Amino acid sequence: MATRRIAEILRSGQPDEALTVQGWVRTKREFKEFAFVEVNDGSAMANLQVVLNLDLENYQNILKQLNTGASVEVVGTLVESPAKGQRVELKAESVIVYGDADPETYVLQKKRHSFEFLRTIAHLRARTNTYGAVFRVRNACSAAVHQFFQERGFLWIHTPIITASDCEGAGEMFGVTNLDFKNLPLTESKEVDFSRDFFGKPTFLTVSGQLQAEIMALAFGNVYTFGPTFRAENSNTSRHLAEFWMIEPEMAFCDLEGNMDLAEDFLKYIFKFVLEKCPEDMEFFNKRIDKTVLETADNIINNQFERLTYTEAIKLLEKADKKFDFPVSWGLDLQSEHERYLAEDLFKKPVIVTDYPKDIKAFYMRLGDDGKTVRAMDVLAPKIGEIIGGSQREERLDILESRMKEMDVNSEELWWYLELRKYGTVPHAGFGLGFERVVQFMTGMANIRDVIPFPRAPLSIDF
Amino acid sequence: MATRRIAEILRSGQPDEALTVQGWVRTKREFKEFAFVEVNDGSAMANLQVVLNLDLENYQNILKQLNTGASVEVVGTLVESPAKGQRVELKAESVIVYGDADPETYVLQKKRHSFEFLRTIAHLRARTNTYGAVFRVRNACSAAVHQFFQERGFLWIHTPIITASDCEGAGEMFGVTNLDFKNLPLTESKEVDFSRDFFGKPTFLTVSGQLQAEIMALAFGNVYTFGPTFRAENSNTSRHLAEFWMIEPEMAFCDLEGNMDLAEDFLKYIFKFVLEKCPEDMEFFNKRIDKTVLETADNIINNQFERLTYTEAIKLLEKADKKFDFPVSWGLDLQSEHERYLAEDLFKKPVIVTDYPKDIKAFYMRLGDDGKTVRAMDVLAPKIGEIIGGSQREERLDILESRMKEMDVNSEELWWYLELRKYGTVPHAGFGLGFERVVQFMTGMANIRDVIPFPRAPLSIDF
Repeated sequence: MATRRIAEILRSGQPDEALTVQGWVRTKREFKEFAFVEVNDGSAMANLQVVLNLDLENYQNILKQLNTGASVEVVGTLVESPAKGQRVELKAESVIVYGDADPETYVLQKKRHSFEFLRTIAHLRARTNTYGAVFRVRNACSAAVHQFFQERGFLWIHTPIITASDCEGAGEMFGVTNLDFKNLPLTESKEVDFSRDFFGKPTFLTVSGQLQAEIMALAFGNVYTFGPTFRAENSNTSRHLAEFWMIEPEMAFCDLEGNMDLAEDFLKYIFKFVLEKCPEDMEFFNKRIDKTVLETADNIINNQFERLTYTEAIKLLEKADKKFDFPVSWGLDLQSEHERYLAEDLFKKPVIVTDYPKDIKAFYMRLGDDGKTVRAMDVLAPKIGEIIGGSQREERLDILESRMKEMDVNSEELWWYLELRKYGTVPHAGFGLGFERVVQFMTGMANIRDVIPFPRAPLSIDF
Repeated sequence: MATRRIAEILRSGQPDEALTVQGWVRTKREFKEFAFVEVNDGSAMANLQVVLNLDLENYQNILKQLNTGASVEVVGTLVESPAKGQRVELKAESVIVYGDADPETYVLQKKRHSFEFLRTIAHLRARTNTYGAVFRVRNACSAAVHQFFQERGFLWIHTPIITASDCEGAGEMFGVTNLDFKNLPLTESKEVDFSRDFFGKPTFLTVSGQLQAEIMALAFGNVYTFGPTFRAENSNTSRHLAEFWMIEPEMAFCDLEGNMDLAEDFLKYIFKFVLEKCPEDMEFFNKRIDKTVLETADNIINNQFERLTYTEAIKLLEKADKKFDFPVSWGLDLQSEHERYLAEDLFKKPVIVTDYPKDIKAFYMRLGDDGKTVRAMDVLAPKIGEIIGGSQREERLDILESRMKEMDVNSEELWWYLELRKYGTVPHAGFGLGFERVVQFMTGMANIRDVIPFPRAPLSIDF
């Protein structure tokens, strides 16, 4: 008999259909001559109600084992459900209990647990309503990313995780080594002898695949990365992970306009995709986690993003009828409070701020005609703040070289990055988007550690 | 005017169509009153022939810059091509040269380079015919992986890259640290004090996401990983990388039969998908790289895989009319020559060998009823050898515990893995597939370093 997923049964199962269901017991309610058992198989938030009648072989014995968490296989027939909120239920004809779950020790009983506690049992938390919904949404969001780019002819590029370059910008890096800590080889001058390490030099975990993605964009036109990146920052906050996934598209023959267009299309696409694929899960988040998540999604999907320069933004912030904690002045970076003021209070929709002062941005961003700004862009969304950062890249060799000198970037190490400007250089642009940030905002989960299956943070490396 | 990708133009462009093309010059042929320039934009192996006539504004000056490697934008009109092998060509009306490429120093001129040499210029090699085809096929193969699993309701799970567990099996691991090598903190007993490292203990790069994927399978039913994994093995061969991508599906309520079915469907799907998406690239490999790649793909797609046990395989090998370098005897692992004999000589199609002796396989594989074998499976393909390894997992707590003791696996560290067997355990199974191995065999590229954009191997960490 065909095994069917519960999501599908609840959507399209018909009375009298015979089928098999496999999953885990969520709850059991016993009556005199029958029992209801709610079974969940992870395919949907909703459970399938299974009805066990007294005439089921081995009824008492089976019922005793059907505690919360037990794994079962039920063969039966769908019947119309008299209960509210469900079209069908499954009348059991036979039940196999694969594994029980002792109610005395199995912690996931029918009661509320804090997310803090559930983080300590990451091997079980995916079996709860909240995390079930989070990881289904996370998967839908990943699928949306690939579908968006593949439909548009972008190639998925795997940029390296281990790198010898420490000048990719952006924060502290983890070291990677094969040396024996207890017996470090030393050079004659008593330095650690990295020539005897696996790669023959100090190596690190990547913080971005952008520079390598540029290589591929200058051969294939449009490419994107979707892979893990790392920060060894000692930030124990609800918005930081030491290990997170990032998406970085890169387009040849593209300027900042094209980059903004792609970023806007992209965000709209993934929010729309997830709303379509996971409507129940999104309803759940809106009801139980954050009552604004559907509104936020709607705001992103249905508004044309406002576009303005950093200089215009500074003027608006200076005129603002609001007291900020951080100073507003041309040359200073925008703080979260400024970004949220622009998106939430002033424009009430997503805003793209462009052309930031060159001194607060990375060396690879294209110098503007004014000589003072670079062709950077940050996408700011209501409730979310900065969600995307990107730029048109500096494609002119001489200007790139002088910017690297100015910002003290090792140009010898990046010889190949300079050669991209020497041979067939073209205007090109791209952006980066922290995947967990998006899932966090999509679901309204307050802590970013709750949207990745096994979070890595300072002193936190379980599972 | 719309910018069109060359792949699309060559497929469906019509005479008299006005359009813009952006790409890089591959070759130029000058005649008295006109010139042919072959332009490639990375979307296809084939170039678009651009015709420049003497009456083009700035003709001489432009032509001088159109050397191999120069980047151009051409606005023009499609015309029927009198030349053989191409339906249309582009009559240029205006040409912009974005970046030139000095023929004196740009190495990618129209001549053969060795793959060894091209590896040293990984920032340019994607612009060659071979690597262009490799990375288009690689992308198609990645897309196939996601499409296959998403269509079947599997969730893409991101398992952790940094791990504190060194008992995942499979070889040497890279260390990850934030400690200052020049100033290592020491405990009172003069050991390195890892409590002061970022995660508070020694950490490593993952060798497999399987154990964590099992967690997720036991909540969602069917999941898969697709992410980077690492081996710090000092193997300087054409089949080893220190950093490579792996795909690991894991299915709850699934035994070895179901696992074999999935593996067979999966391999057929990705080979078929790539043949459909990249026919020209696959033709190229078959013509220029390895004359058997289409035959190999065909063999995988159109045969029902042979399934036999290790014990049966040993008997067949013992009877074989062939001299092997390595001994054949029950209890010893199969060597590459044995695997190839089975798939190539004997069955002439893919073979799945199951139920290996427990002593040569991992602790997590399900013990067979004979007590001597485990429910492992290896998929062997002609010309390829082992391409997939997997197993049904041991879901019985007591047997798993005694297997861990037997094989000296730290069960304290894996407390959560044991709890999966304590609460709602179910039969489950999965397998792993090295992504680069598949791309290597699909393309016929002899060296695995040529199918990943930026290969990492001993002493090899450029770009």
